[in-house]
Amino acid sequence: MPPLVTLLSDFGSGSPYPAAMRAVLAAYGEMRCIDISHDVPPHDVRAGAYLLSTIVPFTPAGTVHVAVVDPGVGTSRRALIVVAGGQYFVGPDNGVLMPAARRAGAPRAYVITDEALLRGVRSSTFHGRDLFAPAAGRLAQGTPPGVLGAPAPEIVDLDLGTGRVVRGALVGEILYVDAFGNLITNIPASLLPPAGTRVMLRAGRRLMVARVSRTYGEAARGRLVVVPGSDGLVEIAVREGRASVALHASAGAPVRLGPAR
Amino acid sequence: MPPLVTLLSDFGSGSPYPAAMRAVLAAYGEMRCIDISHDVPPHDVRAGAYLLSTIVPFTPAGTVHVAVVDPGVGTSRRALIVVAGGQYFVGPDNGVLMPAARRAGAPRAYVITDEALLRGVRSSTFHGRDLFAPAAGRLAQGTPPGVLGAPAPEIVDLDLGTGRVVRGALVGEILYVDAFGNLITNIPASLLPPAGTRVMLRAGRRLMVARVSRTYGEAARGRLVVVPGSDGLVEIAVREGRASVALHASAGAPVRLGPAR
Amino acid sequence: MPPLVTLLSDFGSGSPYPAAMRAVLAAYGEMRCIDISHDVPPHDVRAGAYLLSTIVPFTPAGTVHVAVVDPGVGTSRRALIVVAGGQYFVGPDNGVLMPAARRAGAPRAYVITDEALLRGVRSSTFHGRDLFAPAAGRLAQGTPPGVLGAPAPEIVDLDLGTGRVVRGALVGEILYVDAFGNLITNIPASLLPPAGTRVMLRAGRRLMVARVSRTYGEAARGRLVVVPGSDGLVEIAVREGRASVALHASAGAPVRLGPAR
Repeated sequence: MPPLVTLLSDFGSGSPYPAAMRAVLAAYGEMRCIDISHDVPPHDVRAGAYLLSTIVPFTPAGTVHVAVVDPGVGTSRRALIVVAGGQYFVGPDNGVLMPAARRAGAPRAYVITDEALLRGVRSSTFHGRDLFAPAAGRLAQGTPPGVLGAPAPEIVDLDLGTGRVVRGALVGEILYVDAFGNLITNIPASLLPPAGTRVMLRAGRRLMVARVSRTYGEAARGRLVVVPGSDGLVEIAVREGRASVALHASAGAPVRLGPAR
Repeated sequence: MPPLVTLLSDFGSGSPYPAAMRAVLAAYGEMRCIDISHDVPPHDVRAGAYLLSTIVPFTPAGTVHVAVVDPGVGTSRRALIVVAGGQYFVGPDNGVLMPAARRAGAPRAYVITDEALLRGVRSSTFHGRDLFAPAAGRLAQGTPPGVLGAPAPEIVDLDLGTGRVVRGALVGEILYVDAFGNLITNIPASLLPPAGTRVMLRAGRRLMVARVSRTYGEAARGRLVVVPGSDGLVEIAVREGRASVALHASAGAPVRLGPAR
Repeated sequence: MPPLVTLLSDFGSGSPYPAAMRAVLAAYGEMRCIDISHDVPPHDVRAGAYLLSTIVPFTPAGTVHVAVVDPGVGTSRRALIVVAGGQYFVGPDNGVLMPAARRAGAPRAYVITDEALLRGVRSSTFHGRDLFAPAAGRLAQGTPPGVLGAPAPEIVDLDLGTGRVVRGALVGEILYVDAFGNLITNIPASLLPPAGTRVMLRAGRRLMVARVSRTYGEAARGRLVVVPGSDGLVEIAVREGRASVALHASAGAPVRLGPAR
């Protein structure tokens, strides 16, 4: 079967730029393209890194991921290929690739040095089309990353962190707010107390009582729940409502789940 | 040619969840994936059911439709495969599949009982990825639904209703508001009076005079028109404007088209 | 490899209509579909024409482009196939195809006259599904446009214009506002003064000092820059901000870049 190629960017879902990348990729042969999201908040490298990391458990070895959240495009920031667990990650050297790569396996990074690829950069503002897509096309054709780049001794890293237990409470951070207004944290779901437990939840500036639940649907409508999310992380939700509104919370805000008195 | 697989959800167009479903599906072989929409209003089973029903006249036998509008995910609600007119429908047992299935043919429903499929449910919040996509993949490979599930004697039904004539007026309901602000009703377009007829239109709380037209473009700019929509249903539109704003109307609101004095 | 087919419309990214077009296209054999954008501002033929024109440098001969920004659907406006540089353009005769076609090569236009295609028009409001998609499917199968239509002696043209030098200043128009709030003008980037030059920028009603830069990332955060865009046109941007907000400017507004005193 043709290789999988995924695309992630902050171009916006109405943008024509992903289509330009797909058109460029199409010249490299048959592949199966999957858009992860093009609605990463503009320039939010951290949100992009999180979203990319959610897909790698479900894509096979040989998959090529292209991530373009790239506020430094056209500056001296380098262009990378990272190999991990047999999957390839192509994008800027700003950390956006790293959480996904670590999740896929032990990352090895290459700085793109291939002359033909670098000559293709016709614009200083759209390396997604001019450099990353062609590099991804070459990888999808089977070109080894070592042919397209040189091992990178040092790269920009990015760590989404892992929530943990601090004096009896779960402490972490909001990574992402999804389309339902659910708050996805970096706290491993395995740390949650049993379903039914009442917890005191602090997210952003609000303090509210919530209940641990196995699923959204088990709570009463409008009730705040803490659930093990689909990605193995704790999620905060309001049944058929928006937790982001109820808690005035957004990505980057600290979260604390303590015992309710 | 590889089978068609359609995806519908309320995940939001920027969500990474459809990509996770596509990645899972990709493991089941070549198929041609079509996104119907991922912008169903959150938890709006009725809107999802309508949108799914619009595609089935254009998809061939063998097509697999996956619909994930699933506020009850992780509760005891069952997971279904419905067969109708040679097309397959996979999703929760909450009615979202039924209007489309009835439109495709005589529906026969199966509750998913396959052990391997049910064992794959690793999260209690994302059956789209963990259960419905794998079931769709198996169907796309040609596995008969009877192998994956057991006939369901009773399922949750959902009827979008059909507008009709009541004392000389057309009476129905708004099913959907499209991106232009056009109001799509459940009134069959065949019941419309001839183009040019003036009608008294009540939608939501507003009462306005409109004109029946064959097409949007025949009206004057800003004028309210009633047209036979592309799906065979009456649509209410404002030429190069937004009927939803002019009439303060949204999905679920009653509609009445009576003679204008 | 299967032919490329691109889709562009103002249906909105949550709309089910592009899926209906894809389902219709799927019946014509294997092809590789690319969505350029379905978020063209409703009825904005000019914005659609611009977006379509950005893709043609990256698509090969044989590509079929379908553009549905069609406020006149169902009226007497004609349906066109335009051939240019070996690429095909299908859509309404309102100019939306022309800037892209001219960019691809010397356009030759045909009015669709094929009986079978015209008989397929089952709705007066959705020619994208009923006429343009089937015509595109036939072209993708290799049917020559002369078989599907008759040469059109005269068609509706549309010119995006080209910014130029007027008394020492660059004068043009905003063609498009992208998802970052960047303003894409019709001024060729080759006319820009060297990077580092300060310019007096008038866009809409605002007058502001900006700096010519090679790339977004070289400016200070929040600073207004003028850059050579990825499409060879001058773009106005605010580093990690929104130029459209800073300048209160939108598509169609005149732009003037003069020397800063």
